[in-house]
Amino acid sequence: MHHHVIVFRWKPEADPEAIRKLADGLRDLAASLPGVVSYACGTDLGMRTGNDDFGISAVFESADALQTYLDHPTHRGLVSTYASLLLADKHGLQFAEENS
Amino acid sequence: MHHHVIVFRWKPEADPEAIRKLADGLRDLAASLPGVVSYACGTDLGMRTGNDDFGISAVFESADALQTYLDHPTHRGLVSTYASLLLADKHGLQFAEENS
Repeated sequence: MHHHVIVFRWKPEADPEAIRKLADGLRDLAASLPGVVSYACGTDLGMRTGNDDFGISAVFESADALQTYLDHPTHRGLVSTYASLLLADKHGLQFAEENS
Repeated sequence: MHHHVIVFRWKPEADPEAIRKLADGLRDLAASLPGVVSYACGTDLGMRTGNDDFGISAVFESADALQTYLDHPTHRGLVSTYASLLLADKHGLQFAEENS
C-alpha cells in the first residue's frame, strides 16, 4: 500500500470556511478516483503541544493511483487556490508501507 | 477513527540501523496494544520535491487507545532514545476523521 501523509499549519488569518472547502474538495476528489483505499483528514485534537493544525492521511493501492491523485487537475487547482491563502507551513511525504 | 500522523526529517548523520530499530520498535509496540486499527510507517518515495524523510500513519479505534500508545513507557523510551539521536525535525498531529 502507498501512503500519502501531509500536515498543515494554517496562517493565523486562515478562514475556517475556506479550510472546509479545501478539505471537502480533497475528499470529494479522492472519492472520485480509482485505487484510493482510504482518505482521511481532520483538525488537530490538541493531544500534544507543538502539533500542526490539520492532517491528511490517505492510502492508495499503488504508486500510480497516488501519482494520479497528486497530478490531477482538481488537486492542482485546490492547492493553487488555497495553499497561498491558508498555509503557513506544510510537511509530508509519500511512502510504501515497510514491515520489519 | 482517530489518526496519528507524524513526519520526520533525519539528521544528515542519522544511522540507517538506528532508524530501522526505531521503526521496528514502534511497529512492535503498536502490534502489542489493543485498539490499534492500523500502523504504517516508511521512507519517502521521492514523488515530490521538498518532502520529509519518514512518515508514520496510524489509526486507532478511540482517543483512549491513541493516548495509551502515546503515553506508553515503550513509546516514551523509543522517543527519548532515538529522537535526539536521529531527528532534525518533526511535524504531526492526532485528528478524528472529519467527513463533509
